Amino acid sequence: MPKPEFGSLFATRVEEMQGSAIRELLRQAGVKDFISLGGGYPSPESFPLPTIKLLRERVEQKPDYASRILQYGPTEGLPELLNILPGFLSRENRQVRATPENIAITAGSQEALAILGMMLINPGDEVAVESPTYLGALQAFNLNQPKYIEIETDQDGIIPASLEKAFQDHPNIKFLYMVPTFQNPTGRTIPFERRRQIADILIRYGKLAVEDDPYSEIRYEDESIPSIQSLAPENVIHLFTFSKTFSPDIRIGGMVAPKEIIEKANLIKQGLSLYTSNYNQALIYEYIAGGFLDQHIPEIVELYRPKRDIMAQAIIENLPDIFEFTLSKGGMFIWVKLKKEYESLASKINIKEVLKEAKEAKVGFVPGAPFFPYATGNEVMMRLNFTNQSEENIVKAIRIIGEILYKKLL
Amino acid sequence: MPKPEFGSLFATRVEEMQGSAIRELLRQAGVKDFISLGGGYPSPESFPLPTIKLLRERVEQKPDYASRILQYGPTEGLPELLNILPGFLSRENRQVRATPENIAITAGSQEALAILGMMLINPGDEVAVESPTYLGALQAFNLNQPKYIEIETDQDGIIPASLEKAFQDHPNIKFLYMVPTFQNPTGRTIPFERRRQIADILIRYGKLAVEDDPYSEIRYEDESIPSIQSLAPENVIHLFTFSKTFSPDIRIGGMVAPKEIIEKANLIKQGLSLYTSNYNQALIYEYIAGGFLDQHIPEIVELYRPKRDIMAQAIIENLPDIFEFTLSKGGMFIWVKLKKEYESLASKINIKEVLKEAKEAKVGFVPGAPFFPYATGNEVMMRLNFTNQSEENIVKAIRIIGEILYKKLL
Repeated sequence: MPKPEFGSLFATRVEEMQGSAIRELLRQAGVKDFISLGGGYPSPESFPLPTIKLLRERVEQKPDYASRILQYGPTEGLPELLNILPGFLSRENRQVRATPENIAITAGSQEALAILGMMLINPGDEVAVESPTYLGALQAFNLNQPKYIEIETDQDGIIPASLEKAFQDHPNIKFLYMVPTFQNPTGRTIPFERRRQIADILIRYGKLAVEDDPYSEIRYEDESIPSIQSLAPENVIHLFTFSKTFSPDIRIGGMVAPKEIIEKANLIKQGLSLYTSNYNQALIYEYIAGGFLDQHIPEIVELYRPKRDIMAQAIIENLPDIFEFTLSKGGMFIWVKLKKEYESLASKINIKEVLKEAKEAKVGFVPGAPFFPYATGNEVMMRLNFTNQSEENIVKAIRIIGEILYKKLL
Repeated sequence: MPKPEFGSLFATRVEEMQGSAIRELLRQAGVKDFISLGGGYPSPESFPLPTIKLLRERVEQKPDYASRILQYGPTEGLPELLNILPGFLSRENRQVRATPENIAITAGSQEALAILGMMLINPGDEVAVESPTYLGALQAFNLNQPKYIEIETDQDGIIPASLEKAFQDHPNIKFLYMVPTFQNPTGRTIPFERRRQIADILIRYGKLAVEDDPYSEIRYEDESIPSIQSLAPENVIHLFTFSKTFSPDIRIGGMVAPKEIIEKANLIKQGLSLYTSNYNQALIYEYIAGGFLDQHIPEIVELYRPKRDIMAQAIIENLPDIFEFTLSKGGMFIWVKLKKEYESLASKINIKEVLKEAKEAKVGFVPGAPFFPYATGNEVMMRLNFTNQSEENIVKAIRIIGEILYKKLL
């Protein structure tokens, strides 16, 4: 047998792995004239091109950096960035309490999710997640084969009583994963009073939570709400990223956590990828230190708000009124699902068929299934991204989806 | 119990994790006047600054890239880079056979090692490694708790009979990990005839090998030797990196492997870090496509060869002659160990003490232990890096190490 039998070589963690929705979407995005409401992509118009050019010059010319920006660097992160991040994290949209020693830098927040999965999950361990939850987190955690406990949610996110019951029924839950602000996929935000209740439950049960926050800078209305980390800093690991502000390709994110966690995170990070690009960390340092981030955020908000409003209007006008959505106050998504009283109609609508026909008409979205760890496959829900298309394309795409849905209901 | 008991939350894979030698060295490197022969750092003088400036301009201005270099990209890699890599990999120093579909792009070759560990290792699975072996590979694989089978080596690297015996005695070995060219830590290279024997053994036993090749571009003398992948392409996964040519901070590496492996690698990569920076992939594409790599390699070789020669001479002149080394024909390291007939003297020399005293005199090196999966802790060996110090500093550091060693032998 000259050629290895690869099937017999794979570890159990990869045996059941399948191509994911995200990956398919990353591919779709390149097709000409295709209107994707699928990916979680920022708009290219949001990229601060003149600022980036300026920042590159600064980083390349500053004697402080010199050859450091081309050489191997410390796993812990670039000192300049570690020192400025506590200020960034304390802004009103997070109000996170951090010191440089409480922070680990990662290649986007995806790597932080992967590191935490490796740190905390033995095969079969229980992990609590919002239902629905971010599919990229499921992908990261799945590498370690957890069992998921799904926590019920409503239009205000996690229902505290459901969380408390989960901790009672499953005392070995390792941690709760959640996106409390402008959640992916639902766009929902947990109000302050509920955050207090959740923090209180975490503290009472001595439980750990991972608070993923990629979107809180991108708020279209209302006042900021403090992070859950600010209410229970010993119990919460808070994740951040610059993918939705500076740009995704910078691949800089990280976590704030108690020191015991940061130490282990850096050990795992070293095995995974040694360290994160110094050059890119220096760019983010200059982006924050020079006040460019402060100037940039309102521009992004002004760019996206009308897109959100137009998508909401187009949904109301074009989708059968058996569907509903909660208007997202920030972030990148609107989540459409059947109204409670029409849920029985789900069997009449094959959402995979809807997606297939939409793709034939060059329109993409993400159906509900990938956001549930134990999906049936026909979750009649749609995650619609409004940040990466023109207002014209958003209306066109929603009309096409509406027409397909009406036909299915005939 | 308000605060989680972190100790009880950690997965078994991290319970025994310890700070590594590499990490300690990355930190040391920053101390003023410290002469580190420890890290595997390229010389800052090797960084092609004017070329990098030119390449950045090219990437930032080329309409083909436009906003792609700031946006999320495909996990598989940037098409331009995937298409040019088969040519790069077929150069005489590798002679690797590859198509774009056989390649996965990773954040340095460290991420490739981590991905392969996750793909192939269940806890307790057997992995064969050269003795000694690259410590970063052990760190990556340790995340999945393998058992290591150590293969004997001599001055020509892996002894084929030892490999064959390992496959006979341990028929479940998942794969062999090796660095056949200018190995880290020993600097040794497996000659062509032995490569043929190793390829033949892999094929006869239907076994998989991971051939890590970060150094073959950096050859100081003699003709290139084809990779083992070229002799058994169905049995060998070949790793490459641009950390030793373009510069480490670019964080671009990858693997060539049969398609079944590449598919799984991309699924795991997606969970770990979504994708690798498009901007950095585009820089590497332009570096290769514009002929800059071809021009740069001889410059690196000319920079490092005299450093190697001076280190070799300094060792001969300054270290007690109970030590020996094989002159590395390429790469970044000289490996010093006791001559066979003096191995009994090992008990007289506490290598940790030697290192401690060296550090007090502001000199660093890596002792033997971290390169062995089951070290005793007093492997009286030293990995000495010659690329990242001036010729003057190399001589000074070796003299200091020599003085410490002579004192120990009194």
